[in-house]
Amino acid sequence: MSEDLETRIQAAIDGKTKPRGSLGRLEPLAAQICRVQRTTTPSAAKPTILVFAADHGLAREPVSAYPREVTWQMAANILAGGAGINVFARQHGIEVLLIDAGVDWPGQRPPGLVDCSMGPGTRNSLTGDAMDLADVDRCLAAGAAVVDQQVSPDCAILGFGELGIGNTSAASLLSSALTGLPLEDCVGPGSGLAGPGLSRKLDLLRQVQAAHGRPRGPREALAMFGGFEIAQMCGAMTRAFATGRLLMIDGFVATAAFLAAWSLDAAIEENAIFCHESGEPGHARVLAWLKAEPLLGLGLRLGEGTGCAVAYPVIASAVAFVNEMASFDKAGVATGAPEADA
Amino acid sequence: MSEDLETRIQAAIDGKTKPRGSLGRLEPLAAQICRVQRTTTPSAAKPTILVFAADHGLAREPVSAYPREVTWQMAANILAGGAGINVFARQHGIEVLLIDAGVDWPGQRPPGLVDCSMGPGTRNSLTGDAMDLADVDRCLAAGAAVVDQQVSPDCAILGFGELGIGNTSAASLLSSALTGLPLEDCVGPGSGLAGPGLSRKLDLLRQVQAAHGRPRGPREALAMFGGFEIAQMCGAMTRAFATGRLLMIDGFVATAAFLAAWSLDAAIEENAIFCHESGEPGHARVLAWLKAEPLLGLGLRLGEGTGCAVAYPVIASAVAFVNEMASFDKAGVATGAPEADA
Repeated sequence: MSEDLETRIQAAIDGKTKPRGSLGRLEPLAAQICRVQRTTTPSAAKPTILVFAADHGLAREPVSAYPREVTWQMAANILAGGAGINVFARQHGIEVLLIDAGVDWPGQRPPGLVDCSMGPGTRNSLTGDAMDLADVDRCLAAGAAVVDQQVSPDCAILGFGELGIGNTSAASLLSSALTGLPLEDCVGPGSGLAGPGLSRKLDLLRQVQAAHGRPRGPREALAMFGGFEIAQMCGAMTRAFATGRLLMIDGFVATAAFLAAWSLDAAIEENAIFCHESGEPGHARVLAWLKAEPLLGLGLRLGEGTGCAVAYPVIASAVAFVNEMASFDKAGVATGAPEADA
Repeated sequence: MSEDLETRIQAAIDGKTKPRGSLGRLEPLAAQICRVQRTTTPSAAKPTILVFAADHGLAREPVSAYPREVTWQMAANILAGGAGINVFARQHGIEVLLIDAGVDWPGQRPPGLVDCSMGPGTRNSLTGDAMDLADVDRCLAAGAAVVDQQVSPDCAILGFGELGIGNTSAASLLSSALTGLPLEDCVGPGSGLAGPGLSRKLDLLRQVQAAHGRPRGPREALAMFGGFEIAQMCGAMTRAFATGRLLMIDGFVATAAFLAAWSLDAAIEENAIFCHESGEPGHARVLAWLKAEPLLGLGLRLGEGTGCAVAYPVIASAVAFVNEMASFDKAGVATGAPEADA
C-alpha cells in the first residue's frame, strides 16, 4: 500500500471530533478495514456468514458430550431458523449460508443447504488418515467455489462458522500440528466435557497424534485430522482474501481453519478480524501464537459463527465512525493542546 | 424475587439448542435482564441514552488537554448529529437526549437541548465547594425529572453518558472519596494528558482533595467536587432503577455517578449493566472495587455514552437468544450426555 494512502487513512481517523485514540480498538480496526479496501470511506456491506457442517469419524470415539446425530439435528435447526446463529444474524441483517461439507444425514438431505458434501463424514483419524490429500484439495476448491458462486459480489465482509460433533478434537490436533503448541494446551471441554470425560478426550487425542507422523504442511495436517468442514472453510477463507474481502474469524475451530489458510499464505492475516476469544481454553493460546487480538471476550463457545455475528455490529461501528463522524474543522471544535497527543 | 421465577428463567436459558453455558457472558446477562423484568420473555425495547453536559470551575486550572470551550462546541456537535454518540446511536436505533446540566454557552443556547441548566458550570473546587448541598438536591431532582418527563414509558433500557471538559477530574475525586481508593489510582490522562501535564493534574487534584475534609456520603462528595452533569446523572440513574429499567453504565465519569447512586441505595446494582472498561486507567480499579464485570474491553475513552451505544447490540443479543432460539424439545435436538453439565 502507498504511504500516501496510509497517511490519508490516519488523517481521516484523527480528524474526527474526539481525542486521538479515544475510540480504542475501533481506531486500528477502522484503519485495517480502510487499508484492506484501499479507501478512506470503508464498507461492511452485505455481511454474510458461511457455516460449514460435517461429521467426523473420530466422533465414534468418546470425544464429545453430544452424540454424533446432533450434527444433522443442529444443521436442520439452522435451516429452520432456530439456532443461535440465526437469531444473531437476523438481529444484524447478516445472511447465513449453511454448507453441507459432509454431514451424515439419516435420510434425505433437507432443502436449503449448499451442497458440497464429501460424503457422510471423515474416516476415524485414530485408525488412519481422516481423508486423502486429494480430498483436501477437493475441499479447498469447494470452499473457494462457495465464495465465488454463493456470496453476493457486493459482500464486503465474510464470516466463517462451523458445526460438527467432534470438531474441537480435529481443531486441537490441527492447532497443535500447525503451531507446535503442546497438544494439552490445545484440548478443552468442547461442547461440555468435564472431569473424566475430558481426560479421556486428551488421552484419545494423544493416541491419534502418536498414530500419525508430524505433517508436512497444512494440507497433510488436514488429511490426517480432518474435517471436511475445516478444510472447506480454509478454502473459503483463502478465496475471501483473494477477492479483497474482510474475514470475520469465529472461535477455536474456525481459527484452526484460519491457521491452515495462514500456513498456505500468511498475508491473509491483513484481512482477518478475530471476532472473539472463545471459552474453549485452547483458543486463547492459538490467538496468542498468532499475535491476534480478539475484539470481544464474552466466553462464547457455541460455534456456528455466533462470535462473528455478535461482533459484527462492533466492526460496523468502526466503519460508521470513519464515514459519519464530523471532523474538527467542519464542526468548529477546538483541537487539543499539543501535549494531548504527546 | 420468587425462587420459582429464578428456576423458570434458568430453565428457559438452559433449554435453548446449545450446550449449557456456551453463550458465555450472554447467559448471566440474559438472566439478569429476566430477573429485573420478572419475565422469561425479556425486552431491550426503545433504548435511550441520556447525555448530561456541564462545565467545571476546576477546568480553569490546567487539568485537561482541551480548552473549556470544547464543552459547548461538542454539545453543539451532538445536537448537529456529528459526534461519536450520534453515529453509534443511529446505527442501533437508540434515541439520544442531550441534557444541559450547566454548560457555559458563549451566547444563546441552541435549540434541541433538554434544559436543566444549573448555571454556567460549577465553582472551582480548588477554592471551595463546587456547589451547595441544595444544588446537589436540585440536580438529583432534575435528573429524575428527565427520566419521568423526557423518556418514553416504553423504554426498557436507559444509557447514561456525559460531556464536560474537566469532568474526569471531578470523577477521580468522587471515585476516591466514595470508594476509599487512593487518589493516584483514580487519576488518568482523561482526554489526552501525558507526561508533565498528567503529573500536574495529579498534583492539582491532591490539592483539591486536601482543601476539603472527607465527605460524609455521596451528596457531600458531589457538592465538594461536582459536577452538575454527574449529580444529574446520579438522579437519573436512581429514577431509572425505581422505574424498573435496565441501566447501561458507560465509562469512568458515568461510573462515578453510579458510585454516588449506589452509595444512596446499593440495590441499584441489580439493574446495572457495565457496558465497557474504559481506557481511562482508574475505571478498571473502580469496576473491580464494585465487583462489576464490564461487557466489552475495547479501550474506548470518549465519553458521551459511546460505550453504552457500542455495547447495546450485545445486550440485545442476550435478549434475542432467550426470545427467539429454539429449545431442545421443540427442535428435536438431542441433549448432551449427563457429564456435559458436570
